[in-house]
Amino acid sequence: MENLFTINNVWMMVSIFLVFIMHLGFATLESGLCRSKNTVNILFKNVMIVSIGLLTYTFVGFNLMYPGADYAGGFFGFSGFGLSLPENGLTEAYNPGYTYYTDFLFQAMFAATAATIVSGAVAERIKLNSFLIFSVIYVGLVYPIVGMWKWGGGFLAEMGFYDFAGSTLVHSVGGWAALIGVMLLGPRLGKYNGGTKAIEGHSIPMAVIGVMLLWMGWFGFNGGSVLSANPGTVSLVLVTTCIAAAAGSVGAFMTSYAIFKSYDITMALNGILAGLVGITAGADLMSVTDAILIGLIAGFIVVMGVILLDKLKLDDPVGAIAVHLMCGIWGTLAVGIFGSKAGLEQIKIQLIGIAVIGVFCVVCAFIILFAIKKTIGLRVSEKEEIEGLDMHEHGMSAYAGFGSNDD
Amino acid sequence: MENLFTINNVWMMVSIFLVFIMHLGFATLESGLCRSKNTVNILFKNVMIVSIGLLTYTFVGFNLMYPGADYAGGFFGFSGFGLSLPENGLTEAYNPGYTYYTDFLFQAMFAATAATIVSGAVAERIKLNSFLIFSVIYVGLVYPIVGMWKWGGGFLAEMGFYDFAGSTLVHSVGGWAALIGVMLLGPRLGKYNGGTKAIEGHSIPMAVIGVMLLWMGWFGFNGGSVLSANPGTVSLVLVTTCIAAAAGSVGAFMTSYAIFKSYDITMALNGILAGLVGITAGADLMSVTDAILIGLIAGFIVVMGVILLDKLKLDDPVGAIAVHLMCGIWGTLAVGIFGSKAGLEQIKIQLIGIAVIGVFCVVCAFIILFAIKKTIGLRVSEKEEIEGLDMHEHGMSAYAGFGSNDD
Amino acid sequence: MENLFTINNVWMMVSIFLVFIMHLGFATLESGLCRSKNTVNILFKNVMIVSIGLLTYTFVGFNLMYPGADYAGGFFGFSGFGLSLPENGLTEAYNPGYTYYTDFLFQAMFAATAATIVSGAVAERIKLNSFLIFSVIYVGLVYPIVGMWKWGGGFLAEMGFYDFAGSTLVHSVGGWAALIGVMLLGPRLGKYNGGTKAIEGHSIPMAVIGVMLLWMGWFGFNGGSVLSANPGTVSLVLVTTCIAAAAGSVGAFMTSYAIFKSYDITMALNGILAGLVGITAGADLMSVTDAILIGLIAGFIVVMGVILLDKLKLDDPVGAIAVHLMCGIWGTLAVGIFGSKAGLEQIKIQLIGIAVIGVFCVVCAFIILFAIKKTIGLRVSEKEEIEGLDMHEHGMSAYAGFGSNDD
Repeated sequence: MENLFTINNVWMMVSIFLVFIMHLGFATLESGLCRSKNTVNILFKNVMIVSIGLLTYTFVGFNLMYPGADYAGGFFGFSGFGLSLPENGLTEAYNPGYTYYTDFLFQAMFAATAATIVSGAVAERIKLNSFLIFSVIYVGLVYPIVGMWKWGGGFLAEMGFYDFAGSTLVHSVGGWAALIGVMLLGPRLGKYNGGTKAIEGHSIPMAVIGVMLLWMGWFGFNGGSVLSANPGTVSLVLVTTCIAAAAGSVGAFMTSYAIFKSYDITMALNGILAGLVGITAGADLMSVTDAILIGLIAGFIVVMGVILLDKLKLDDPVGAIAVHLMCGIWGTLAVGIFGSKAGLEQIKIQLIGIAVIGVFCVVCAFIILFAIKKTIGLRVSEKEEIEGLDMHEHGMSAYAGFGSNDD
Repeated sequence: MENLFTINNVWMMVSIFLVFIMHLGFATLESGLCRSKNTVNILFKNVMIVSIGLLTYTFVGFNLMYPGADYAGGFFGFSGFGLSLPENGLTEAYNPGYTYYTDFLFQAMFAATAATIVSGAVAERIKLNSFLIFSVIYVGLVYPIVGMWKWGGGFLAEMGFYDFAGSTLVHSVGGWAALIGVMLLGPRLGKYNGGTKAIEGHSIPMAVIGVMLLWMGWFGFNGGSVLSANPGTVSLVLVTTCIAAAAGSVGAFMTSYAIFKSYDITMALNGILAGLVGITAGADLMSVTDAILIGLIAGFIVVMGVILLDKLKLDDPVGAIAVHLMCGIWGTLAVGIFGSKAGLEQIKIQLIGIAVIGVFCVVCAFIILFAIKKTIGLRVSEKEEIEGLDMHEHGMSAYAGFGSNDD
Repeated sequence: MENLFTINNVWMMVSIFLVFIMHLGFATLESGLCRSKNTVNILFKNVMIVSIGLLTYTFVGFNLMYPGADYAGGFFGFSGFGLSLPENGLTEAYNPGYTYYTDFLFQAMFAATAATIVSGAVAERIKLNSFLIFSVIYVGLVYPIVGMWKWGGGFLAEMGFYDFAGSTLVHSVGGWAALIGVMLLGPRLGKYNGGTKAIEGHSIPMAVIGVMLLWMGWFGFNGGSVLSANPGTVSLVLVTTCIAAAAGSVGAFMTSYAIFKSYDITMALNGILAGLVGITAGADLMSVTDAILIGLIAGFIVVMGVILLDKLKLDDPVGAIAVHLMCGIWGTLAVGIFGSKAGLEQIKIQLIGIAVIGVFCVVCAFIILFAIKKTIGLRVSEKEEIEGLDMHEHGMSAYAGFGSNDD
């Protein structure tokens, strides 16, 4: 018994490392898909989000998300500031699968993800300060309150809403804020001056590094969400996760080839992420065939989503809304369509969960971002945007004296 | 007992992640050693190989490679399309070391490797379509059929052929196809116009990232091939693997310094890979001293191999043939020379295995690639090769507007 | 019991991989923070240190550091060249937490770290040969002798000196040599010609990749130092490690913003490392609040340290002395100030340990480096420094033909 506890805890720690490295994945993906003049800015945001997110989640978030037996159920609970080790929290008394600290760290790694998703969508034009303030509030309050509704034993859990590892609870929560951010900020200069201008990313290798790290990290994101090392469940989850990613890239590749007649690597990369987001809600419920179908459809959705957003003049430099919001919704719905929980009743419950969380996130994100916009402002000046955020906000270039020998 | 099963399965899952990240290693290594104008193309190939390889192996490969008790032995067997969970496949009934799904995923990660090896050798001039078609067939049919001969219980296994983790079964299988591909394609334009022109890679940092990720990944490639977490065997395998890599880089460094009188980092990097490929066939049989000798010799072989291939006007941009084919053969032979299975009889058996697999792979690779050449063609046009595959096949640059602020 | 041994060993192997990947972290961090003309040189050093360090530690280091029961205690012991498996060394007879080979590999990964720390401080002007000779001696002799004083059961262990995972035994040991190296080499050309010139790094993305990999690797560096998978201790160590890193970046960010009024990403990155080095000596003793305070102060120290070193005209291109030496001292002292061992007596012991090791390392590093300086020389020629070490020592550029299509 004690041995099993130790094994489970090792597995959860491995999952922590995998989710941690997703933050490097987001950092390289987002900066690779943006222009070199904004690289330091994006990297700064992504690094600081991890730090700030961890600390915020330590102080408030964890205790909002898991208020404990007395408070669980309902809409809101809070068990006090900071971490406090429950009696025997370092042994199986706390949980058969992991220690109190392992639990905290795994959850904290998740929390920072939601803000990171927003980061990509608002890149190249948001003020650094404004973004960091938003992140603190969103990671510290909005994300954990929503998370409690399902993972903390709240009303959505009681209703039967199913979201295994967070297609909605993490990805859509980030995606809704990304959508509101993009709407309040407006497009980058020159993006929609008569048609849509493709503003290419400055480093495809960085984008590839990012997506491959995210793919690897997702093994921990979904595999760790089993909350134990149970061999049958975890290995099934790894297979469905991996196969959905593969199918997602094939789906996006075929869709974009059919439309654009070229081999667009950014679509193939976003297809991988689309498949991963899509499978996340039901990774433990699906067969291999289900996973392939969910991935293929997610790959289709992400390409159409990117096109649609451009039609709507919603400028999302990295495709975060299409990946995390649209495929997050798709994955959550897919729980009612494929796999062992499929059924009309479940679809209805999934729709309710998506809608309730969507409304809450949209309202919260709007209030926070609108308040920031009306006080310190959301967007950098036109001059700063043209010359690049790196020189203005950070006083440096990401690639100083690159290639020159005369420094 | 159940606990041991869970531990073993955790170890195998960790190995899966490590082998997975090797694909990012190959992607960055290959594109780093090629020119910037072909970067998107190489990355696209390497990302799509993972996806396509995984799906192909799901549909056909796994069941060709492990046809099961009824079919095993001999030359060929097939247990039907797709994955089908054996009764109790998620418990120790399937295997004392891992679940059915863990087994599948570990093997699937290996399968894609063989095609990836080819990718580097044929880079900067092969048509994308042609390469992807080749990959599907090679990963789906050739690799698993050869694999079955040894790992699926086929005739080479019965003969006593030893290849612990695939010096021959993975690396040479890829290497032979790389050789045939290079011969059918011909060298890159300008490579051998009066002497040999060094065409330098565009990003040494990416090559270093690639090799270090491959080194790390090899801990799972070899360590996972123990197929359990058995502490004695796995930890020995990690040490021999790691030490052979270190010795390989020292061997290649000394050889290349003796010949060229300069500190050639690409040789040091290929020396690491040479040592890793060299130890792979006997990683569980060797002492630390054996591992050092195998690695040093592999480092020597890879440098001489690169020189030899240039003499023969065989243009392999990343040195894949020298690393994977030559050192793969060396490692397979080394099983008969060093370690606990050393002996003349074993050397003979190893030679037979190398030869049989070599002939089969050469014939298959030739048939596939020649058929492609005669139908849709293998090589891009001269214009496309000069201007870069990125603009022609993908309509984009890997480093759009790099360093410019005016976009 | 046997199962527990297997679990512990799996955890230690995971830690090995994490510490291994720190070497890629150092390689990318250091080259990212230096100029593009010296990139190949830095990468070459960092890759070869791993190989050379592993082999040196195999031959001599491991047996100097852990001379065994007969020799342990006191100042020096040696149990013979090479690795020799103790009877039953592959089972729990050797150790309840891991096999002989796992032990060796974990320790070997640590050993190479000490030399790598030096590498960054002396970058862009040290001769490659000279550095490699220094590394062999420092990793092979100095590091393991000091290590034995505490971790091998020597006199500092008996005195009660506490250094959980090496704030002093690894980081300061490297840091002292870095200081001596910088003093003997002198600053880079143009660094202090009338005031201090900021010589910017050529790739912030590489620096970010480096720091995030180091952060991840530190989970193994500290987590593996528990020397078993004990759930309570390991998970506490992961949390204190991670939170100190987060606090370190916030501390450095606030300090540098207060002083320079800009968002300096290199300071935020060094703040993460500062927090990590700072928590390392007492990661298993601290509460979450302690970890936050230790990290915040480390973040403050690293910024002030960088400024101080520039005042003293000590040119450390990557901030290695501020991070590893200053925060290493801070972390070692912090064991006496915070956490379960806090007390005046402990502070005194910690100071003695810091001083004794400091004197020994300074003397050894000085003797080795001074001898090299007087024989083959330490520093490259002025011409070579201006034109870049890559062309002179390696005959190549890190980014050949970058962005050009005409090759």
